Amino acid sequence: MLDKPKDAVLDREFKVVGSRPVRPDGVDKVTGRAKFGADVSAPGMLIGKVLRSPHPHARIHSIDIHAALAVPGVKAIVTRDDFAENKKHKDVLCNIMARDKALYEGHAVAAIAATTGAIARKALKLIKIDYDILPHVTDVDEAMADDAPILHDTMITRGVDPAPEKPSNVAQRFDFGHGDVEDGFAKADVIIERSFKTEAAHQGYIEPHACLASVTEDGHGELWCCTQGHYAVRDVCASLLGMEVSKLRVTASEIGGGFGGKTTVFLEPLALMMSRKTGRPIKMVMDRDEVFRASGPTASTSSWVKVGATKDGKITAASAEFRYQGGAFKGSPVQFGAMCAFACYALENVKTVGFDVVTNRPKQAAYRAPGAPMAAFAVESVIEELAIKLGIDPVEFRLKNAAAEGDTSSYGPKFPRIGLVETLEAAKAHEHYSAPLGPNQGRGIGSGYWFNFGGATSVSLNVHPDGTVALVVGTPDIGGSRASMNLMAAEELGIPYDKVNTIVADTASLGFNETSHGSRVTFASGLATIEAARNAKNECCARAAMIWEIEPDAVTWEDGCAKPAGANAGNFEPMTLADIAKIAEKTGGPISGHFEKNPAGAGASFATHMVDVEVDPDTGRVEILRFTVIQDAGKAIHPSYVEGQFQGGAVQGVGWALNEEYIYGADGKMQNPGFLDYRIPVCSDLPMIDTVIVEVPNPGHPYGVRGVGETGIVPPMAAIANAISAAAGVRMTELPMSPPKVLKAIDDANGSA
Amino acid sequence: MLDKPKDAVLDREFKVVGSRPVRPDGVDKVTGRAKFGADVSAPGMLIGKVLRSPHPHARIHSIDIHAALAVPGVKAIVTRDDFAENKKHKDVLCNIMARDKALYEGHAVAAIAATTGAIARKALKLIKIDYDILPHVTDVDEAMADDAPILHDTMITRGVDPAPEKPSNVAQRFDFGHGDVEDGFAKADVIIERSFKTEAAHQGYIEPHACLASVTEDGHGELWCCTQGHYAVRDVCASLLGMEVSKLRVTASEIGGGFGGKTTVFLEPLALMMSRKTGRPIKMVMDRDEVFRASGPTASTSSWVKVGATKDGKITAASAEFRYQGGAFKGSPVQFGAMCAFACYALENVKTVGFDVVTNRPKQAAYRAPGAPMAAFAVESVIEELAIKLGIDPVEFRLKNAAAEGDTSSYGPKFPRIGLVETLEAAKAHEHYSAPLGPNQGRGIGSGYWFNFGGATSVSLNVHPDGTVALVVGTPDIGGSRASMNLMAAEELGIPYDKVNTIVADTASLGFNETSHGSRVTFASGLATIEAARNAKNECCARAAMIWEIEPDAVTWEDGCAKPAGANAGNFEPMTLADIAKIAEKTGGPISGHFEKNPAGAGASFATHMVDVEVDPDTGRVEILRFTVIQDAGKAIHPSYVEGQFQGGAVQGVGWALNEEYIYGADGKMQNPGFLDYRIPVCSDLPMIDTVIVEVPNPGHPYGVRGVGETGIVPPMAAIANAISAAAGVRMTELPMSPPKVLKAIDDANGSA
Repeated sequence: MLDKPKDAVLDREFKVVGSRPVRPDGVDKVTGRAKFGADVSAPGMLIGKVLRSPHPHARIHSIDIHAALAVPGVKAIVTRDDFAENKKHKDVLCNIMARDKALYEGHAVAAIAATTGAIARKALKLIKIDYDILPHVTDVDEAMADDAPILHDTMITRGVDPAPEKPSNVAQRFDFGHGDVEDGFAKADVIIERSFKTEAAHQGYIEPHACLASVTEDGHGELWCCTQGHYAVRDVCASLLGMEVSKLRVTASEIGGGFGGKTTVFLEPLALMMSRKTGRPIKMVMDRDEVFRASGPTASTSSWVKVGATKDGKITAASAEFRYQGGAFKGSPVQFGAMCAFACYALENVKTVGFDVVTNRPKQAAYRAPGAPMAAFAVESVIEELAIKLGIDPVEFRLKNAAAEGDTSSYGPKFPRIGLVETLEAAKAHEHYSAPLGPNQGRGIGSGYWFNFGGATSVSLNVHPDGTVALVVGTPDIGGSRASMNLMAAEELGIPYDKVNTIVADTASLGFNETSHGSRVTFASGLATIEAARNAKNECCARAAMIWEIEPDAVTWEDGCAKPAGANAGNFEPMTLADIAKIAEKTGGPISGHFEKNPAGAGASFATHMVDVEVDPDTGRVEILRFTVIQDAGKAIHPSYVEGQFQGGAVQGVGWALNEEYIYGADGKMQNPGFLDYRIPVCSDLPMIDTVIVEVPNPGHPYGVRGVGETGIVPPMAAIANAISAAAGVRMTELPMSPPKVLKAIDDANGSA
Repeated sequence: MLDKPKDAVLDREFKVVGSRPVRPDGVDKVTGRAKFGADVSAPGMLIGKVLRSPHPHARIHSIDIHAALAVPGVKAIVTRDDFAENKKHKDVLCNIMARDKALYEGHAVAAIAATTGAIARKALKLIKIDYDILPHVTDVDEAMADDAPILHDTMITRGVDPAPEKPSNVAQRFDFGHGDVEDGFAKADVIIERSFKTEAAHQGYIEPHACLASVTEDGHGELWCCTQGHYAVRDVCASLLGMEVSKLRVTASEIGGGFGGKTTVFLEPLALMMSRKTGRPIKMVMDRDEVFRASGPTASTSSWVKVGATKDGKITAASAEFRYQGGAFKGSPVQFGAMCAFACYALENVKTVGFDVVTNRPKQAAYRAPGAPMAAFAVESVIEELAIKLGIDPVEFRLKNAAAEGDTSSYGPKFPRIGLVETLEAAKAHEHYSAPLGPNQGRGIGSGYWFNFGGATSVSLNVHPDGTVALVVGTPDIGGSRASMNLMAAEELGIPYDKVNTIVADTASLGFNETSHGSRVTFASGLATIEAARNAKNECCARAAMIWEIEPDAVTWEDGCAKPAGANAGNFEPMTLADIAKIAEKTGGPISGHFEKNPAGAGASFATHMVDVEVDPDTGRVEILRFTVIQDAGKAIHPSYVEGQFQGGAVQGVGWALNEEYIYGADGKMQNPGFLDYRIPVCSDLPMIDTVIVEVPNPGHPYGVRGVGETGIVPPMAAIANAISAAAGVRMTELPMSPPKVLKAIDDANGSA
């Protein structure tokens, strides 16, 4: 089924890569020994708590902390006055501590450090804030209206020529595409045009944000926190605190889920500032309510999609407009949404427009393939509808238009080798695709795309005296990457998996590493691991050459051994890594390999999802009967964790599709900030998610790896909407497709029938 | 006064090296924030306590742990049965947990982990051990007697040909020398021959041994402990526990003194084993009594020295025999003592013999220039006496015979460039040398030698995005080395001292590093730091070349900047480290420099001490009036810490000379295991120790650095004995020269007068 890789380097046989060993951090995690964000304490530490705005939009005239500061046990209070202006991280600063205005309900306005959490909480109530309440807006379309309350008086829309004269809530406009869509639509036999809305969903990580900060009198700081990127946390916090980067050491705890939401800071700068003020360690842990109200969910969106095709199934034009509100600050992922929207298709005429909009909601944070799922929900719904209208099998329709190597993507660059066609062919061939369905049941398809990123990466590999290996990476393990790194190092060195032990180093111990996001870790840290191992192997060969008294280039590394080659082949007994490690001290010193790079070549990953649902016509409840994820992994280093990523993306997609949403009242306050009212899928909501790993090697990685973490959340919403349409005959255009909405759609359809 | 270095490379002007900035770990240490061995805790941890033998020598028939194990709260007990035989670390294993015999009072025989220390202590009393008490020996000369109780039935003296047939307490004989001493003595006009004894002294570190160990169900272990060498601790513990090295991660805490005594393991393997048995973290902290009875003091010794010289002050022959008992196991530092004994002198005929002897005392551990001070006490006493008898100024006499570059050392190798002559000349020129003395006052001189070691070293240097620098070393900071490393990195990069932050990495984060001993850190980690910085600079130049679009070798690093050179000189604005760091991500990725080596070229350091004492003829009390340390540092990176090492060595020498001793009863038990009875010098016992830093560059180090930590403890005992002799007319030949002994010598001298 799968193509052989074109590059002979990739067409290798792997010895340990592709196996499924037990993860090295597993036991610690199931026994409770692993340290998560809230598990770190320090002698003499204080507890920090945050006072948050009860108003979605209000000018802060004054903050009176005197009464709170007088409470016995209160050791420090920080407000906007404690943080200097910061040009580079202006929005982050304004988000972690409101400045002139509170911009959303939950926006931090002060923080207190006290000897106990109870004292801190009590004292919070004594802080007197003089608010001037302003009108608010939380819906993206309303925020774009002419008469909308304006969040930022100075926000002039960028990306529009000529620039608007008056401020608005639109931070930026993005335009992508090529060809002539008007011309394309004119050539179409069938056109489908629809509008869609999606609500904000939270990443729903089990572990709330937590940190422990300690700043000494001479300005050195240490920070332990749960984060996807402790280097980024370090750089931002150092900047906000006015510290040099070398003076702040950040250690990433184990992480109880992040999914993009733990790529920024919330509590960390507050804890550091209060530690600086008190000279004592400060611990801060959000409660769930705070996580919902004040950390970053993804954007809610409004969009419009129009696609036209000829009778024989060739798309002639595609156009879309996306409006994403990213909370109170610029930076919604609408750009990515607009770029990914039509990336699955090779199109002659395509145009997408994106608007980045601010509203009185918490600042959005990245959420798994940020921006892409909402666009795919809209586009893939229209694609499926179009296929059905044309009477073409939806997979066939996609295959007819699928992007492949050499095609110009809808957002500009040409695609290198990619695997969408292979996922579609795998879908078509899958038993699921032709399995029978019962009454009120339907099947839907959705495809999805995500770029995947590279990013700056540093890795060190150190050979121990007994020939076992320490691998040092700087990318927090958010999906089993320690196991994958072990596998790649072991593969390269020709030693068993369990001879390698990978750790995630703190920021003082290893060079810079970009955050664990963009599905970059197995690609970039993996590439650096392989290169570091190759450097160590070269050093091993040099040591063997020294022992054998031959030239270093007369030694090769094969099957975990240095072997004499060429004219010397067979003249000396091969030396294993352990043999060489044993004599390292005598032959020059410790053996290590290092690699630092910002690698290009992260290969995009495409997925096709297939889902069967049953819709209860009486309640509108949608049950997921069967779900198959088919995705291109390039090369699956540890197939179980690849499958886990596929499954995780699908499950989060199911939640977003069917139930998850931020519910705002007319007062601009979130009404469901807890897991009882914000409903994420639980086991009983889900079937086993089946997976098919497609392997179309990424030529940009020595083993062909592509990122796999994010693409899996892109197709589910559309696939489920398409399945609902097939099951119940209603086209859902708003997320979540919760029972009331589905029931209403069915009733409306019946009423109109 | 000082010679210019011969090597032009060393004759450079330094910008920050040689300055005296505040140490980066200072604030943490004075505020109590720094974490020492006992400052680490973990949730659910148990407390471990050790049962120790009350007998100095006893066969262990059986150990019954049933009653102890039944105590509520007791979670694990370990005995000899829990540790497999270990060929590589046989003696270490037998020392941390007695096997067939208890070999000294305080020898560990069992350990208990319980929920509280009180429970563990109570349960210790319930362990029933059936001992067969054996005769014991604690004195080195008695241990060498034919009828001495034999500690190890299988110990046949090594280094003797033919090998003895029957076992003895002499583990090994060492022989050094050249020429013909009989012939030399025949040519002498004056010969002095004397015997000496020294008692064991403890390193006296303030911080007792402490650790926290945690082993998971899948065999991964973590260990936090106060140690001079966490890599060595890792390797030994992994071996004793049967673990792979990669599965044990060791973090060195801050260290409250070590002086060589924290270079081995005592509690660590017990804590790991009990953690493995319970699945819970185990914390163990020695009390002071245990530190004295069961950790390693230095050897007690007995020696004989004979030196002959001509009337005009030329030494014709020197011979000595040294007998060092190193406690219950082989490995006393007698070899070093025999090697260092006459190392200060260029001798035609020299012979030293050393005997490594076992007794029923705790296994000795390294103590600052291990073995050298006892030999120097004997030799330098005789040298001074000889000079006086010849009527030659003692400094002049030493100068006439001083070793210098090109001389064959008394133990074999030829000396490279060394600085003894320079210290003697500095002594002669020093105001102290001719200062007037009062009644009962005397002045003594002593010289001393220590090899200094290199050792395997790994260093990484990472450039942060803001151009500040992280330096990663693996040698615990036992004497201000973080400050020295900061200085060397800053010097090399041309940036201010406080832009560099050095950390001591754990064993999983950095390649192998030999222990912080042998005065190796500033030399070897410093050398590696300089080379790592040079590698980073080369990378910076390459990045600048990329920006300027010129060849990398057309860029040089000067004054903290990359500058275009040669034909391109002046064509581009120089780029600072911060400029280059800022664009690192865009120009290829993170910028780092690494260096791993086992460097040769550690330069020996010589010292000459001058001390004035006043001896109270009525009590025998010796007061130190004035003390001047003159020592060759090669190049003083941070002069304050060099001076601190000089002073620390001198003060420890004063304690050893005058008061410190292990006092054994006839029952073989130590009678003074506490700081009330084992008297270390306190401030009121000491004058300010003056220092003179001599700088004779070490050609083996890029900046000329020599180790300085150990040599300072070598001369004081002899210098003080010589001063007592000058003050009171009595030649003391036993350490400590405590009031009762000095008084007896005075009384004996008066009685015989």
